[in-house]
Amino acid sequence: MKTIITNATVITMNEQNEVILSGAVAFEGSKLVYVGPTPEDLSAYDEVIDGRHKYILPGLINTHGHAGMALLRGYADDLPLQQWLEDKMWPMEAQFTADHVKWGTHLSIVEMIRTGTTTFVDMYDHMGVVGQAVAETGMRARLCRGIIGLCSEAEQQAKLQDAVSFAKEWHLQADGRITVMMAPHAPYTCPPDFIRQLVDKAEELDLPMHIHMSETQFEVEQNVKDYGARPVAHLEKLGVFNRPTLVAHAVHLTDEEIDILANYQVRVSHNVISNLKLASGVAPVPKMLEKGIRVSLGTDSSASNNNLNLFEELKLAAILHKGVLNDPVAVPAEQALRMATRYGADGVFQSEQLGSLEVDKQADLIMLDANQAHFHPVQHPISHVVYAANGRDVTDTIVAGKFLMRNRELLTIDEEKAIYEANRLFDQLKR
Amino acid sequence: MKTIITNATVITMNEQNEVILSGAVAFEGSKLVYVGPTPEDLSAYDEVIDGRHKYILPGLINTHGHAGMALLRGYADDLPLQQWLEDKMWPMEAQFTADHVKWGTHLSIVEMIRTGTTTFVDMYDHMGVVGQAVAETGMRARLCRGIIGLCSEAEQQAKLQDAVSFAKEWHLQADGRITVMMAPHAPYTCPPDFIRQLVDKAEELDLPMHIHMSETQFEVEQNVKDYGARPVAHLEKLGVFNRPTLVAHAVHLTDEEIDILANYQVRVSHNVISNLKLASGVAPVPKMLEKGIRVSLGTDSSASNNNLNLFEELKLAAILHKGVLNDPVAVPAEQALRMATRYGADGVFQSEQLGSLEVDKQADLIMLDANQAHFHPVQHPISHVVYAANGRDVTDTIVAGKFLMRNRELLTIDEEKAIYEANRLFDQLKR
Ligand SMILES: [Zn+2]
Ligand SMILES: [Zn+2]
Repeated sequence: MKTIITNATVITMNEQNEVILSGAVAFEGSKLVYVGPTPEDLSAYDEVIDGRHKYILPGLINTHGHAGMALLRGYADDLPLQQWLEDKMWPMEAQFTADHVKWGTHLSIVEMIRTGTTTFVDMYDHMGVVGQAVAETGMRARLCRGIIGLCSEAEQQAKLQDAVSFAKEWHLQADGRITVMMAPHAPYTCPPDFIRQLVDKAEELDLPMHIHMSETQFEVEQNVKDYGARPVAHLEKLGVFNRPTLVAHAVHLTDEEIDILANYQVRVSHNVISNLKLASGVAPVPKMLEKGIRVSLGTDSSASNNNLNLFEELKLAAILHKGVLNDPVAVPAEQALRMATRYGADGVFQSEQLGSLEVDKQADLIMLDANQAHFHPVQHPISHVVYAANGRDVTDTIVAGKFLMRNRELLTIDEEKAIYEANRLFDQLKR
Repeated sequence: MKTIITNATVITMNEQNEVILSGAVAFEGSKLVYVGPTPEDLSAYDEVIDGRHKYILPGLINTHGHAGMALLRGYADDLPLQQWLEDKMWPMEAQFTADHVKWGTHLSIVEMIRTGTTTFVDMYDHMGVVGQAVAETGMRARLCRGIIGLCSEAEQQAKLQDAVSFAKEWHLQADGRITVMMAPHAPYTCPPDFIRQLVDKAEELDLPMHIHMSETQFEVEQNVKDYGARPVAHLEKLGVFNRPTLVAHAVHLTDEEIDILANYQVRVSHNVISNLKLASGVAPVPKMLEKGIRVSLGTDSSASNNNLNLFEELKLAAILHKGVLNDPVAVPAEQALRMATRYGADGVFQSEQLGSLEVDKQADLIMLDANQAHFHPVQHPISHVVYAANGRDVTDTIVAGKFLMRNRELLTIDEEKAIYEANRLFDQLKR
């Protein structure tokens, strides 16, 4: 089965940021087999889809989140961080069963498919149901059992074992759409020795590491008090960065720390909305990009966002740093869109397969309805996608050559049921 | 003709921020005649609309923009401000005729109706065609002929005369949906004596003033050099604030200047996205709100945004100040939504008629489709509207009791034609 989408504006996000007007994209099985001008002869294709008035671009990659937490969307906002966590989030999460995580994740997957995300990173608990949801819905994800190590050694070992079992069961499953990482939750929630054990296990299983790092000033200062080092030096010393590593947040960094991250090729997930909403601050993204660090975009959870529409992060990443640094050329549109696509592929360690529309890469792509007032006059499409578009412009979402949404209709997941079950489970929680 | 919308979640934005579950809103002619629980007996109504799974809220009020500039959306981004203005914007705008402004404005009105704005402020040239567009499409607007006074006295007088003619022709026209202001463009583009003349004229015609103020640090310093005072003291001295005044931007303010603005009850339009994108900075919004200043939200033009979806400003106003001030309780959701509604009504000097759903106010309201994943679980609706919603969730837009959009269908404006004409005119411009 060979499918071609014709006559579209194709934003390839290849090395040259090439945009093809009246272009075409074809795929067979899970892979892209053609990206270029619309061919005259279409007889080789089983299905021809008219892409007129559409933008086609690589599916967006959300490099940090906790999908199950969709169940807590809007449950608590506008509170000081510790109160929000201790009085609101943690008591609710303590009641979560696999069922809560399952339906929270379904709700999140609906949102992501609708708004053009094709790959997401998830760090949470009860990850088996997340793997199941990804497998069933046709999404692509890099999953990890988030491990908080502030507990007895027996509990630590049980969690480590859970992470290992999850990795063995799910890594490279669902036709390779699911991959796994090893994820100590954060330097401040995992004792150093335990982090070392997780690094060893990641090496044994050949998995990358994913960890929250330097989200708040408070946490950086605490790290210095507790361990005599800021988080970057601390994690370096523990050997984390000897593994391929994706860190989330990286808001509070010195220039020296940025150099260390660059040297180890650590990937950074910039969670711009979550960092603002939780009053964590603004990450030094232009500096990191300048040093060659692959900075991608993450939503974090719906509890601190409160949606998973990555187009919001895309625009904000492009405008926020201009505003706070008084630098109108910081993070131009092309760079912001790279963060959401190519650099996201780097963030999930799959730059060979994902992040751009190029032959032999995976057919993960989205189509936007460009026949709307806010996409006119016709201009550089990348500017319109970054500054004028919204996730709600997405009409089609394709992962591994399979439509998950077609003409705004979801094909692999039941939105009504997800909404119903999420509310049913939320209502049963004690609060 | 009496219409009622039943069984909806009604976000009134009244003094108490009251939200009515399973509520109803009724209107007759241009006015609201009922806001409350859904009545049992609906026999008094000519039309009953089922509002199940909908949020109803006051139409949003966009208190600063230049609708005609939609023609320049995406024409130039990511440039230093002076280069962007001098090399890109001004040479294009110099070629604008009434036709360019007409179709740019149509494009903008399509966007605003689609994303839930019911009243907008516009400061531009060729305002007759803007008045015409507002009258025809059923929108509500507070319009002004923006006057740049860096020209000969004869030209100054011609522009002043144009502003006066526009005011005389359009103020309180279109069943009162159109009102007018007197608008010197900015302190740095109008000589002091000329500003004084405009103030006198505003007094004579009983019109409020609208002016850009303290958008950039550069402009503040220039004002001190040229006139020996920062912009606030300068405009105070010229008598501007003796008229009801709406200033746009107000990014660079001292505490003393904030006190002066508060004393004169000057209204401020916070253009959060434009200020970031143009690298102007972050306005001291929490401080202004604390002093009782009515801060509302503006998009500025599509050239520096690049859309007119005020839901983006709504969310960003709620999260940005938290992030840059390290204050998680700054601008809570309720306050942000007030800025987009009630305070917007203050911004256009029509708080008696607009800004909340209350009997005897104008029937300017919007409906959002709440039956979508990102509005669940069911929680405080104001949180969902501010943090999770997007303008694209708007299904119905009603101004003065008349549907401008119903079930996402535009009823008073032709989107295809606006797109066609905008492109035709843009393509003819020399660049
Ligand atoms: Zn996180
Ligand atoms: Zn302006």
